[in-house]
Amino acid sequence: MQWPFSRRAQALTSSAIREILKVTEQPDVISFAGGLPSAATFPVEAMRAATRKVLAERAESALQYGPSEGLGPLREWIAAQHSADGSEVRPSQVLLTTGSQQALDLIAKALIDPGSRVLVETPTYLGALQAFSLFEPDYVSVASDEQGLLPEALTPEVIEGARFLYALPNFQNPTGRRLPLARREALAKLAREQGLPIIEDDPYGDLDYQGERLASLRSLAPQQVIHLGSFSKVLAPGLRLGYVIADEPLIAKLVQVKQAADLHTPSFTQQVVHEIVSQGFLKEHIPGIRALYAERCGAMLAALERHMPRGVHWNRPEGGMFIRVTLPEALDSTTLLGEAIRERVAFVPGAPFYATAPRANTLRLSFVTVAPARIEEGVARLGRLIATHLEGVAAHRPVL
Amino acid sequence: MQWPFSRRAQALTSSAIREILKVTEQPDVISFAGGLPSAATFPVEAMRAATRKVLAERAESALQYGPSEGLGPLREWIAAQHSADGSEVRPSQVLLTTGSQQALDLIAKALIDPGSRVLVETPTYLGALQAFSLFEPDYVSVASDEQGLLPEALTPEVIEGARFLYALPNFQNPTGRRLPLARREALAKLAREQGLPIIEDDPYGDLDYQGERLASLRSLAPQQVIHLGSFSKVLAPGLRLGYVIADEPLIAKLVQVKQAADLHTPSFTQQVVHEIVSQGFLKEHIPGIRALYAERCGAMLAALERHMPRGVHWNRPEGGMFIRVTLPEALDSTTLLGEAIRERVAFVPGAPFYATAPRANTLRLSFVTVAPARIEEGVARLGRLIATHLEGVAAHRPVL
Repeated sequence: MQWPFSRRAQALTSSAIREILKVTEQPDVISFAGGLPSAATFPVEAMRAATRKVLAERAESALQYGPSEGLGPLREWIAAQHSADGSEVRPSQVLLTTGSQQALDLIAKALIDPGSRVLVETPTYLGALQAFSLFEPDYVSVASDEQGLLPEALTPEVIEGARFLYALPNFQNPTGRRLPLARREALAKLAREQGLPIIEDDPYGDLDYQGERLASLRSLAPQQVIHLGSFSKVLAPGLRLGYVIADEPLIAKLVQVKQAADLHTPSFTQQVVHEIVSQGFLKEHIPGIRALYAERCGAMLAALERHMPRGVHWNRPEGGMFIRVTLPEALDSTTLLGEAIRERVAFVPGAPFYATAPRANTLRLSFVTVAPARIEEGVARLGRLIATHLEGVAAHRPVL
Repeated sequence: MQWPFSRRAQALTSSAIREILKVTEQPDVISFAGGLPSAATFPVEAMRAATRKVLAERAESALQYGPSEGLGPLREWIAAQHSADGSEVRPSQVLLTTGSQQALDLIAKALIDPGSRVLVETPTYLGALQAFSLFEPDYVSVASDEQGLLPEALTPEVIEGARFLYALPNFQNPTGRRLPLARREALAKLAREQGLPIIEDDPYGDLDYQGERLASLRSLAPQQVIHLGSFSKVLAPGLRLGYVIADEPLIAKLVQVKQAADLHTPSFTQQVVHEIVSQGFLKEHIPGIRALYAERCGAMLAALERHMPRGVHWNRPEGGMFIRVTLPEALDSTTLLGEAIRERVAFVPGAPFYATAPRANTLRLSFVTVAPARIEEGVARLGRLIATHLEGVAAHRPVL
């Protein structure tokens, strides 16, 4: 059967990396490749109590079709949480989504035409590129440094005609970097003055190891910013529960698009999550996640110090789940991955995170699902492998 | 804020009917408008046991990210169920979706370009039109009668260049009609011989009041048919769990599209549903749903006989949730709806179910969520209202 694939489907290529990474599920591989939160943080007991209560008290509505906008009381809870930073959010500004990933799909449908200019960080979240690319935008990778986006790179020529800027200000995937307050203020000013829509994707905002929070872009430009939140990193990703906060006229359009996409997010999981969070559970729960991730981040930073050869660089995240490693220019992390797998250690190569001009010598390490002793061993294996390659590069260097 | 909406988003208009139907949630309105299954059939006790077991035995995987294809054991169970009709289905041919609605979105993304020819029944499921229309197809409404699609209307000129035919062979939404076996065979032959992809949307197939099943299009043309199944009508729609069965090369493409859309369908609900269905629960459960719906269908048919004025026609479904009513040509059911709401009775007008050339004198009645005494009262109110209108039409008829 020859399927008559659409142009966007023809452009999809299967990911070689995805195939390689399937191997990382084998138990003897030390995997720093996952973007998974640690299962040790999953609220199993709270889930048990909440499912029991929901099925006892409101099974009919939890199992029936529900509104495309999402469960009313959960929209109210989210609005109240986000109003706490001083910039009021109304429940009518909240749309529940089937994970944050769906928010990216809905927004892309609502805002991208073929050839539309879309501004992204350098590098940026791979899943966002996957969602947007189906709608055939024309990407501009905005210059960024170790602290994130450079607001001065957003010149009038760059902004002209852009449908939106996509940004991940807190502990970005894949770099782990956090955008400083002054840059947030500069971006928000640009958004307000030029009417530039900004998508603020914020799954990791609660994971500051010190429990601090910089002002959200949304609080600084409430009209222009589309804020994406998620329960995946603070409760559990297997529930697939995220949300959008935006201006009502945009929400109204997204609700129509959402209805065509999956009618609504499962009522049952929304009821269960509302039951859990409305009891103040997160306030007790999140500090434990922060402490665990801080400890493992520290273990990985220490191991990198011990085992990485000269010429390899990385950042020191203040929160989140990722460290970004930059190898000497001559090394290609995709080539390295195949060899690393043979040594039973895995990571994600950095190249696919670039919308344009990929930097092949970068890679992403996740530390949250690996115990400190295994982090030490895995980084040691990786360090030895990189050292071997650097010797190889040196040996083959032409004599000038 | 002026949002830079895409062309497809600009084309979306908010539904006046949707606004009117919000009123139908008030308890004194007798609503035949819902497409909801009866909450009396929800498996609350089975859900309680299954959630407890899943959280006790495999909470980590139920709460963690999972594969985009869906939960392995559930794919195996679905494949085995569908192999029972003699045409083998492999687990690799099964993709779990966030409700059947998502399958429509994924397939539209994979197969529709702007201007692509898409063939649909006359009338067809409104939610499918909503999903497809975002990708800007060029619809052809294929001639259909009270038994469904007319295979002879699918001439080579009509099929030429069509990306697919979308069909709902069992107890169609909105008409309740079922496609006879001979027409299924004729359609399957066309699909095989012309390489015409057919989407067979089958949420109601298990709801034959006699417990019978006609051969699925999939079993008659396994290569060309994309079969959509759902747990919404046999378990509960609030779980949002559906699936696609198709050729592996199409599934591979849909998995990539699915990953961009929401990464995967919630692991937790998949685990819970697998726990329920793998114990053989549906075999015990579905006969009860059939009996309830058959009784209510009978009650509505009897009420229609008693209360509808001459000139009003309807079908006698053998399964499913809907009866379709055709009024005399002069009446517009959308106008009628406003007045019906004032009489505290509601239905869904038929016009939005037509991809082209809507028939304004049709309407859809759902009987499954209303007790027989209320069915009697609601149909009586509706009959009186229609009778008044018919007198009005007669009174204003010009004397020729």
